[in-house]
This record gives sequence, C-alpha cells and structure tokens, in this order.
Amino acid sequence: MKTSLQELRELFKPKLRPIHWDDADNSLILLDQSALPFQTTYVKLRDPEGVASAVKSMKVRGAPAIGITAAYGMVLALISSDPKTLDEALGVLSKAKQVLDRARPTAVNLSWATSHMLNLSREAIHEGRARNVGELLQVLKEEAKRIFQEELDAELQMGLYGVERLNDGDTVLTQCNAGGLATGTGLGTALAPVRVAHAMGIEVSVIAPETRPWLQGSRLTVYELMADGIPVTLIADTAVGLVLYKGEVQHVMVGADRILGDGHVFNKIGTFKEAVIAHELGVPFYVLAPVSTFDLRSRVEDVEIEERDPDEVRTVRGVPIAPEGVRVYNPVFDVTPPRYVTAIITERGVILPPFERNVRRIVGR
Amino acid sequence: MKTSLQELRELFKPKLRPIHWDDADNSLILLDQSALPFQTTYVKLRDPEGVASAVKSMKVRGAPAIGITAAYGMVLALISSDPKTLDEALGVLSKAKQVLDRARPTAVNLSWATSHMLNLSREAIHEGRARNVGELLQVLKEEAKRIFQEELDAELQMGLYGVERLNDGDTVLTQCNAGGLATGTGLGTALAPVRVAHAMGIEVSVIAPETRPWLQGSRLTVYELMADGIPVTLIADTAVGLVLYKGEVQHVMVGADRILGDGHVFNKIGTFKEAVIAHELGVPFYVLAPVSTFDLRSRVEDVEIEERDPDEVRTVRGVPIAPEGVRVYNPVFDVTPPRYVTAIITERGVILPPFERNVRRIVGR
Repeated sequence: MKTSLQELRELFKPKLRPIHWDDADNSLILLDQSALPFQTTYVKLRDPEGVASAVKSMKVRGAPAIGITAAYGMVLALISSDPKTLDEALGVLSKAKQVLDRARPTAVNLSWATSHMLNLSREAIHEGRARNVGELLQVLKEEAKRIFQEELDAELQMGLYGVERLNDGDTVLTQCNAGGLATGTGLGTALAPVRVAHAMGIEVSVIAPETRPWLQGSRLTVYELMADGIPVTLIADTAVGLVLYKGEVQHVMVGADRILGDGHVFNKIGTFKEAVIAHELGVPFYVLAPVSTFDLRSRVEDVEIEERDPDEVRTVRGVPIAPEGVRVYNPVFDVTPPRYVTAIITERGVILPPFERNVRRIVGR
Repeated sequence: MKTSLQELRELFKPKLRPIHWDDADNSLILLDQSALPFQTTYVKLRDPEGVASAVKSMKVRGAPAIGITAAYGMVLALISSDPKTLDEALGVLSKAKQVLDRARPTAVNLSWATSHMLNLSREAIHEGRARNVGELLQVLKEEAKRIFQEELDAELQMGLYGVERLNDGDTVLTQCNAGGLATGTGLGTALAPVRVAHAMGIEVSVIAPETRPWLQGSRLTVYELMADGIPVTLIADTAVGLVLYKGEVQHVMVGADRILGDGHVFNKIGTFKEAVIAHELGVPFYVLAPVSTFDLRSRVEDVEIEERDPDEVRTVRGVPIAPEGVRVYNPVFDVTPPRYVTAIITERGVILPPFERNVRRIVGR
C-alpha cells in the first residue's frame, strides 16, 4: 500500500494541535506545554508581546515550533497595531521582531523566522505584491501558513519513508520527545512514522522511556500519544534493556539534535544505550531528522556536550531524590557512532550506510 | 601488595554502621534507612517488638541486614523478658520468633535467623553449654555476632578478590545499591572492592546511576559512599552510556539477586544495559555475590520477572511525572546473559567463563 504526500495530507487529521491559527478570529492558539501533562490549557495570543511571553515561559518549546510561532507573532503585530501605511507597517514589524527575538535569544529558529518575515515584507512591497497594508497582511499570513505546512510536509515525508519499515502490530521504542509537541505540527520527527501508520490504519504501539532528568518521555511523549489515541507504554529508563531483550520492540526510532557528515548522531542523553543494545540484539535503529539537522563541517571530537544544572538530577519536579550537595554529572546529549545506526530518515530520503559517502549525497545537494 | 583477610579485618573501619550492637548498653542500634538520605537517624532497640516494628517499617532492608537484625532480636528477647529458668527462656524465644517472623513473612533470612537462634538455644541447653539463662544469653550474643562477622568476612573476601582488579585512580560504575546498607555490615557486595581499596589506600571513585524507579542509587549508594568519604558522582540512568563511551569508567561492578548455573544474572532493572554497553566497549563487567545467591536448578526461561506497582513509575516520591492512568511496564529485575559477564566474584573465589562449567566448581562443592 503506497500513499502519496498529497493523499497523506488529507489522511492526517491530528487531534493534537500545539500551534493553531484561528483565521476567523485572527488569533494564534497555543497548547501551553509548560503545564503538560497535568493540565491541558490553550492560550489565545493576539499580539507579539503575548507571543514573546509565551516563548519566554516555555509555553511553546522545540526549535520548529518556536519558528512557526514567531512567524505568526509577526502576523499578529500587523493585526494588533493596525498601521495605516506600508512605512508604518515596516516600523511595526521591526519593533515586533525586536520584542520577539529578545524572548529567547539563543533560539536560532526564532530570529530566522522574524528576519525572514521582515525581509519578505520589504520584498513584497518593493515588488508591488503588497500595495497596501491589507495586501501585506495577506502575504505574511500566507507565509506563516507556508512555514507551518513546509514543516508538516517534511514530517509527513519522513513519516512516509519510515512507515514502509513498520508492520501491523509492531512496537516502536523511542527516547525523549521528538513528537508533534516539539515541532508544533502535531506530527513530529521520530513519531512521524507511528502517526502516519495510524492515519493509514496500521496498528503500531510505542514504548516511551521517561527520559530523566527532564522527563520529556513521561511528560510529553506519553501525553501526545494518549491525546491521539495511539497505544503507549511508559517505562523507567532502566527498563530499556529488558524490553529489547524480551523481543517486545521491533524498531527503535529517535530524533536528533545534530548529525555529522560521517553519521555520528547527537541526541538526547540515553539514545546511545538504545542504539548499542538494539544493534547487539539485531533490532533496527532509525534516526529521523530533517536535513537542517546535519552539520557537515564538524568532527565528532569538536562537538562539545553541554552540561546542565546538577539540581536537575538531584531533584524531580522540585522534590529532592539524593543527598544535598552530591557531585553530579548532567550531560544533555550523548553521541551514537554510525556503526549502530541502521538508517537516517530525512524528508529527502532514507540514508543508509556507509554514511561517510551517503549523507553528502542526500544532504549536500 | 597482598592483604590477608585477617589484616583486612583490622584495616576496615567503616564510618557507616547500619547495624551496631551496643554491648555496654545491651541494645541494638539501627540506622533508619527509611529516612535516608534526607535524615540520618539512629533508632535504639531493646526488645523483639521494637525490632519487628523496625523491619516492618523498612528502617532496615536488604536480605543479609534483616537476618542479622532478627538474630539480635532474639538476643533482645532474652534481655528484655529476663526469664528465670531455661524453660521460661525457651518460651520467651519461641514467642519472640513468632513476633519477628510476622514482621516480614516473605523475608527468608528473617525466619532462617530466628529458627537458627531457637534451635541453637535448645542445642546449647541439651549439650550443657548453657546451664543457666546467663550462659544462654552469652551463647546467643556470640552467635549473633558470629552471623554478622560471617557476613562481613564474606564481603571482605569478595572485596579482596575484587580489589586485585582495581588500580589507583580507577572509576567504578555500579547500579542500584549493593552496598553496606543492603547487607547491614557497612561494606556490601558490589561496593566491597571499592571500600577495601580505600581501606588499603587505593583511590577509587564511583559513578552511581540514580536507578529509577526506586532510586536506590541516588538515595542509598550516594549516601553511603559520601558517609565513608569515597568520591561518588550521581548520574541519571540515561547517562550510563555516555560515561562508558567517554572512557570514564574502568570497571562495572554490580550485585545480583539470583545467578543461574549457566551464568545468567538476575539483578536490579538497568543492569543489562550496563553489561551490554561495557561488553561492546571492552570495559570489564563484574558481578559480586555470595554463593548463597546461586540457583543451580532453574533455567533462565523458568525465572519469572516480578512486576511492581505502576505508580512507582508514574510518580517520584509521590509527585506525578506522567499523565494519570498511562499504561506502565514496571519490571523489578532484568537478566544479563553470561556472554556479557567478565567474572563473578564470590567469597569462595572468582568464577571466570565458561560459567556453565566453572560455576559448579566453586558453588557446587
């Protein structure tokens, strides 16, 4: 059964909508991720200040989700300020970009999106596609929608490549949250094949390790799969080995924070152990990531593994779990060497070993 | 540098004393493990009822520790009831055995210890070694002390075998708590080589994974090593792979709940992943356990892996970390196949592969 991207766009009807533009009401509706999974609350945003505050307070997280949100923040700037002239409109957008960029200065997708929307406005005015504020608003709305759709299409495409590997009744082990919450589309990267499978009527279930210290697995992956009615089982991180050993997992599917040209994968701490055990037991290990994740210039020894606050390990949701002052090592990522990776699935195609050669073929073009 | 067991008995001066008989005061002093690591409280016990209550409320835990405590509970029965005749004394001991056994009916070491003390009393009276209550008390006191010393000697011996593998500056990765708290001696099984190394002036440090869902690593292993001044670093369970990958670990040392004749090791969930990754990266993986841990009759497929309350995974110290009602798989143990085990260290010697042959040579004699 082959499905096209076009057919899949029709098939995929997510119940989970982390970012949703309400066209009738001219407002942006965000699922408040900071309260998940304990409260499902949506916030309605009408101006760039509201968007900036939502970004700052982690109501929205994940690089693609922040980019999409920021693009809509620029749309809201025009709507809320209601400028009379195109010059005034460009001033409003410049100011909005400053407000939005300050919300999370390290988020590359944020400043990329605001710059892109501002440049596009200048271009559209220059080229005569936006002859008044109303037309400019239309251009920006369409562009924000296009950014969202482009992200979603990339994920649907990854889902289509990934679903070819899945059979009815299979169980997928994942790690962290590389799902529809992180990307804002409701689909995700690592979880795209599972969701596409469900849209196509193929029954696939997921095992989600809790993913200490941040618990993205127990808090977010479990939440979003339950919201979509996809069967999910939560395990402690310690139980990853046993579920693989018992043959309960047919595929491991994870996302990535950075993939090098030789196939080294940097992803959430805990990914490496799944890769090694899966490899040892002959279970395929797939990395799902858009081509924007690839870093063809760095070597593995050049990439610094960020360490975070020791209190993230000493406590869980503010509750202490260890003696005060104990020395802690709290790395955010680990690195999985290419020999443990069965395939890297991107929106442009599936990359098989040898990665040294094949990554450049797909990503470098 | 070779050290004998006799020399080591003198060298090993634990700061941590989970079970301590106060001879001057005729009382048993227990470190309250239920409050660890947040409070260091000792309870003073003077009668079997107090001992039973301490066992019931998990102030003392771990099979060997419970056995030693129960033996002292029988000593306290004689002291607190102060019987006038030997007949009366046997009545007191029978009643005490009932009180103690009821405290934790599934703890084999508990009823073993109380039966042993009662039988020994009858024997000593019969053989004329206890001609009055004072002499009987002396016999029982010496026996309780002997049980403690026998446990400690077994651990010291494992420590001596294990320390031969350790070099100054090495780091040991462990799992769960197979330390001096679990055995009651302050030494432990998996941690015995590390403590013996320190007693001998060899600097060895430990990496302790938190060990979800019960957090024995962050709560107990970290506590007891800090108490002894042994350098310890706490990591999330997800970081086990990275510390091995980065070459920060020279040895993995874990305990065991059950070891089969062919070398399959059942131990706390999370052990298997350490074994596989260590094997893959060429780091030796040692299992430390007394010969009483071996089960030469069962086959691996016969051993059922106990599952516990899903809420242990859904919460941490009572705080929810996942959506309510999420399906959970919460196995207590995992199984490590013999091909990942470098050696099994017992008090009778080091067992090397092939385990199928060598386990019986050491354990079966």
